Amino acid sequence: MRNFNETTITDAVLERIDNTPDPRLKQVCSSLVRHLHDFVRDVRLTDAEWAFAIDFLTRTGQKCDGNRQEFILLSDTLGISMLVDAINHGGGGSTETTVLGPFYVQGPPEYPLGADIRGGMKGEPLYASGRVTDSVGKPLANAIVDVWHSDDDGYYDVQRIEDVGGLSGRARFRTDAEGRYSFWSIKPAAYPIPYDGPVGEMLVAQKRHPWRPAHVHFMIEAPGYEKLATHVFVNGDQYLDSDAVFGVKDSLIANFIHHDGGKAPDGKAMTEPYYTVEYDFKLMPDAR
Amino acid sequence: MRNFNETTITDAVLERIDNTPDPRLKQVCSSLVRHLHDFVRDVRLTDAEWAFAIDFLTRTGQKCDGNRQEFILLSDTLGISMLVDAINHGGGGSTETTVLGPFYVQGPPEYPLGADIRGGMKGEPLYASGRVTDSVGKPLANAIVDVWHSDDDGYYDVQRIEDVGGLSGRARFRTDAEGRYSFWSIKPAAYPIPYDGPVGEMLVAQKRHPWRPAHVHFMIEAPGYEKLATHVFVNGDQYLDSDAVFGVKDSLIANFIHHDGGKAPDGKAMTEPYYTVEYDFKLMPDAR
Repeated sequence: MRNFNETTITDAVLERIDNTPDPRLKQVCSSLVRHLHDFVRDVRLTDAEWAFAIDFLTRTGQKCDGNRQEFILLSDTLGISMLVDAINHGGGGSTETTVLGPFYVQGPPEYPLGADIRGGMKGEPLYASGRVTDSVGKPLANAIVDVWHSDDDGYYDVQRIEDVGGLSGRARFRTDAEGRYSFWSIKPAAYPIPYDGPVGEMLVAQKRHPWRPAHVHFMIEAPGYEKLATHVFVNGDQYLDSDAVFGVKDSLIANFIHHDGGKAPDGKAMTEPYYTVEYDFKLMPDAR
Repeated sequence: MRNFNETTITDAVLERIDNTPDPRLKQVCSSLVRHLHDFVRDVRLTDAEWAFAIDFLTRTGQKCDGNRQEFILLSDTLGISMLVDAINHGGGGSTETTVLGPFYVQGPPEYPLGADIRGGMKGEPLYASGRVTDSVGKPLANAIVDVWHSDDDGYYDVQRIEDVGGLSGRARFRTDAEGRYSFWSIKPAAYPIPYDGPVGEMLVAQKRHPWRPAHVHFMIEAPGYEKLATHVFVNGDQYLDSDAVFGVKDSLIANFIHHDGGKAPDGKAMTEPYYTVEYDFKLMPDAR
């Protein structure tokens, strides 16, 4: 096979991929080649644009480290993450899902229910609680509830780990016999996704803002149920309609209620103002 | 904008991109989003496949350094590079083009015509010569001719820079008044593209070999003419019909002629066997 032109090159690549032993891999690779080639032909990509793309992708990979995942940011800001989410989740009366985002840390520290997980983060206290049930309301005991959120400047612990002195605003809980979870932390703030890398350049070039509305991440697992990755968004946030990563769903917005002080839901006597939020999660039976 | 499903998410991203001030950038980004979303929907990409893709792209970026460009390899092996080449070059009676590849080094060392550029490379001597003209045969004097090629194990200097003791098999020349170039080096060998990275994993998974037929890279520039990036392939090579990067064109295959010794074309008395190759290049007037 030689002498390819802009039409025959696509079939040549597909023919080469045709020997792929794994049928699913063959399907995915073949479709990717068809769509990428169509893109290049549609826009008549120039040599200089190709060279820019190579450099952009290279820098995106090289911006990644243990605390930064620039390719997830790229996927998020191009709506790919929410598209994959929409294809794979939803329906059946369970809690809606949204993007995982780039700030999840494997194996977060486990705390007892009701613990304060703010660590080194400063901000207004928040008491969060609710229940984990199946889709018809049966409580799921001993479900693993991973939680992570930003501080009130909009930074995650891993973005300023030396300032906060270790993992903060991040924990794992196990629900009690009634499926309940609860914890103290601080109220998170809206924040710009990290924009000091290639994705930030892209947003500037596209005249887009990098902001996400304030939210708390939850990832919940229970045997026999589909793992749920979602957020609970702060009602009233100014970015709910323009989330940089397209992640907002009405059903995920909750009221974070302000209190001047007094007795908190867990009986704690609060001398300073604080917030409460209550949100119940419903898990889908595992389809596998 | 909220509550996107797998159909509405695409329009939401396109609407966000709609403010892009540069019209060409807007066109390219919008087309890319449409085609990538179509790909994800077509194959119903799973969460696990998405996570694999994020990791694959990250590792591809992190495999790149000053001497390795894994994203160019990925583009080459998916036929993207040859597609971009086909769209932007060709026709008009000039020499055909092919992939740049990942081994070009900016600003190669300049040598006088006829110099031996093998440096630390071992192999059978090769005398290469020819002319650079416009498309109707008018000689182009003082054209810049960049040359680079592998050694007879198939490695470029930058892949084993300590073994060869510096840049080798790599040079820049300027054509004489008759448009002629000439140099001594060694006959390059067929070689596998570097397969110890993500692209190598892909080739294994697709059951493809990583080999390229032996060739010498040329990049030629002259004021008023389109820059030419091409190869001269060694006739008879076993990989001419299965180049891992789809780069072979019949018009770029030349006879590398074996000589037992004796007087070389430049008058040099050769006591050992050597090869000669002659190839003339025709440049296109610059369209810009």
